[in-house]
Amino acid sequence: MSPNSRHTAGAELSRVFEHIDANKDQFVSRLLDYLRHPSISAHNIGMSEVAELLVTMLSRLGLEARTIPTSGYPMVLASWNRAPGAPTVLLYGHYDVQPPDPLEAWISPPFEPTIRDGRIYARGAGDNKGQHFAQILALESHFAVHGRLPCNVLLLLEGEEEIGSPNIAEFVRAHRDLLRADLVITADGPLHESNRPIITYGVRGIVSFELRARAANRDVHSGNFGGVVPNPIWTLVHLLATMKNADGEITIDGFRDDVVAPTERERAATARLPQIAEDVKRALNLATLDNPVDRPPADSLMFYPTLTINGFHGGYAGPGPKTIVPHEAFVKCDARLVERQNPDDILDKIEAHVKKHAPDVEFLRVESTPPSKTPLDAPFSQTVQSAVHAAHGVEPLIYSSLGATLPDYVFTKILGTPSFVVPYANADEANHAPNENIRIDCFLKGVRTGAAVLDALGKSVESSGPIHSDGENGSWLEP
Amino acid sequence: MSPNSRHTAGAELSRVFEHIDANKDQFVSRLLDYLRHPSISAHNIGMSEVAELLVTMLSRLGLEARTIPTSGYPMVLASWNRAPGAPTVLLYGHYDVQPPDPLEAWISPPFEPTIRDGRIYARGAGDNKGQHFAQILALESHFAVHGRLPCNVLLLLEGEEEIGSPNIAEFVRAHRDLLRADLVITADGPLHESNRPIITYGVRGIVSFELRARAANRDVHSGNFGGVVPNPIWTLVHLLATMKNADGEITIDGFRDDVVAPTERERAATARLPQIAEDVKRALNLATLDNPVDRPPADSLMFYPTLTINGFHGGYAGPGPKTIVPHEAFVKCDARLVERQNPDDILDKIEAHVKKHAPDVEFLRVESTPPSKTPLDAPFSQTVQSAVHAAHGVEPLIYSSLGATLPDYVFTKILGTPSFVVPYANADEANHAPNENIRIDCFLKGVRTGAAVLDALGKSVESSGPIHSDGENGSWLEP
Repeated sequence: MSPNSRHTAGAELSRVFEHIDANKDQFVSRLLDYLRHPSISAHNIGMSEVAELLVTMLSRLGLEARTIPTSGYPMVLASWNRAPGAPTVLLYGHYDVQPPDPLEAWISPPFEPTIRDGRIYARGAGDNKGQHFAQILALESHFAVHGRLPCNVLLLLEGEEEIGSPNIAEFVRAHRDLLRADLVITADGPLHESNRPIITYGVRGIVSFELRARAANRDVHSGNFGGVVPNPIWTLVHLLATMKNADGEITIDGFRDDVVAPTERERAATARLPQIAEDVKRALNLATLDNPVDRPPADSLMFYPTLTINGFHGGYAGPGPKTIVPHEAFVKCDARLVERQNPDDILDKIEAHVKKHAPDVEFLRVESTPPSKTPLDAPFSQTVQSAVHAAHGVEPLIYSSLGATLPDYVFTKILGTPSFVVPYANADEANHAPNENIRIDCFLKGVRTGAAVLDALGKSVESSGPIHSDGENGSWLEP
Repeated sequence: MSPNSRHTAGAELSRVFEHIDANKDQFVSRLLDYLRHPSISAHNIGMSEVAELLVTMLSRLGLEARTIPTSGYPMVLASWNRAPGAPTVLLYGHYDVQPPDPLEAWISPPFEPTIRDGRIYARGAGDNKGQHFAQILALESHFAVHGRLPCNVLLLLEGEEEIGSPNIAEFVRAHRDLLRADLVITADGPLHESNRPIITYGVRGIVSFELRARAANRDVHSGNFGGVVPNPIWTLVHLLATMKNADGEITIDGFRDDVVAPTERERAATARLPQIAEDVKRALNLATLDNPVDRPPADSLMFYPTLTINGFHGGYAGPGPKTIVPHEAFVKCDARLVERQNPDDILDKIEAHVKKHAPDVEFLRVESTPPSKTPLDAPFSQTVQSAVHAAHGVEPLIYSSLGATLPDYVFTKILGTPSFVVPYANADEANHAPNENIRIDCFLKGVRTGAAVLDALGKSVESSGPIHSDGENGSWLEP
């Protein structure tokens, strides 16, 4: 039986599924216990307590578990490597959660998990405690049924994902040997709105920056000084107009030089995705989408860089008129990057463009994360797809890339390891928002999915190989 | 003796000057009394009290004085017309003042006039009570010395100048017969910084408007929606870039169609003015002036329309990054207009331009005032110049136009009367600001100037004629 056709569970996996089904109530109850522990990285609340709690939990399972300090909050790393010859999977998640504000918007308190209508409501229920706890229960279920795992496992749980993962790259570089794996699986983010499973092969990168323009040392009267004293808002308008045109094309010198077109395989997979244009228009009450209007949104989100103005502020904002020439203004922007754009190089190019077109405008680098992409035909790609299919009974949707950010590049670019994002949460998980939740059926399907992936990897006839096997696409690797 | 060379006071005027000099202490004391009465149009404080106080004051002088209601605060109109054959001058001023906030910034309370270092500090000291009170004292001084005025006089004091003169145009249209005059003199604004007198022959007009762009019904994540959901800030940036280019040229379709180039006389007068480019750069700490950098600021302020962005606001304004596509943004603009731009026509053109380039952007008209210009060779021009020269002992600076706004067009465009702005206040009067003041010597020189103008008009050999005598420039008249 080829991996492609193995979409139903074999005997070993069926027994694990039965165990999961028989234990679902205590699994839910134990997730509630876990969610009662706040671990808010932004506010330094409960971080080491939850890290230690995880080490205890994972040690009891039979994994070798410990915390490893970083310049910020510790990493939790656990391993089990008693399956010689089988591949090693690195399971990534994060134990920190978003701050729960505004508290008054929560129907039940964020750290008093509550079940309503088949959902568990709590901060972290979806993002990410409910998801990595499902991964841990998948390990536990294999141990319970078979006394062992089907493949070697590394579990890496970060404590700083919600504050931008400031230390994970340094950590990964410093601990390459500990993190050697054949593939990475991240359980984070939502399933498709239809509840169909998704596998994502990459994330776009991001750079963000600020443009600040100043002219006079104070606001002046527009009648007495308009046309005489430079207006920083006009300066920024004219600068921005050189950076992206009204057709939606980014026109920063050199910005698109390194953009790699999607592969045929990626185009084909994307063409099979549900079309979202009408849904987006309906949900956001839009008459039209952004330029270029004839480009499918999925293509825009996966294959094209963006340049977004997040905020523009200068001058008078109150009611009625105020006849001033403002003396300062600023613009905040982010740009989403695709392979093989390098964030530092892109920031250099934007800075050079600003210096050329508006030399007096101050350019501030704010943050940057490289893009990441695993080729659709990377090693273990079919294995993961088949396992997800088996766990859900439905073929997964294949996303070449995500619009949003994850520190996925540390695996693909620093370690050179294929990386797959396999989310477990419902699409309306309300992550980062009040009343965050995970549907109990999604949580349990997550446990099944985790178990199925382990099972499939144990049986895999694939061997580890170079990440950029299709030779067409893929990421630059750190030397 | 031709009007051109009559720059010293004759016998009749010398006696009036002597009277002014002999009475300066009581003049100052009476101005302090007047300034104790608040008349804040924006807050409806003391308006009818001060209007009635003026009627009493002017009636005692021997003028026929009354208030005339408008839809807002009343006009005060006084007249004396017992100089048959002599011209009639309409003296315009305004009895309302700006609100005094912030109160804590005043060294002495705004309505408790205080003399310090040769200046009277009080709200309205410069703008405009001190100036029209000087005009009234000029009338009084002529009456005291000669028992009569040298020419016919209309005194019009508005109560709504500080709130944009919303009713003066309607008032002037309804009372054309009462307001028939050969010329208008407005004593408002400051002398040159050097204390040299100024005569201004016009003011630019203004239109102000707001552009509002909306896209989605809420802010959305820039990774999940950037490049898919329209960004109202980009929409406004691209629209604005079509309205004025980086060289400082306004590119709104048809905007400059009706702009009339300055006359040779206006160019020559402007070339004789002190150059202000270096002063502006020093005062505002600017490396360069606005584009086009080679245009003298005086030319920009008198002869060219402007398009100024007063404020641009949309999206995130807080610290650090926030990766959103904002869902709404707005821009506030004003445009200063020159002859013969018609504000309604200009607003129509801007609206058509917006509809063409960004049909979804909402265009809101906020306010409009037509430009006004009296030709440099209009009737009584030389008479007024000579009188000001005589009062100050210094030749006045001739400004073809002011950058800021005054409702001057009601005289030139509705009544077709030549209009001259002859300011009395010091350049640092701090009008509209805390610690507003008038220098006592400027106030008394204002009384002298007012007296000299009346004297010169009584002796004038000029006769009333069409306002647009030079045939090159001038304003459109209301039919």
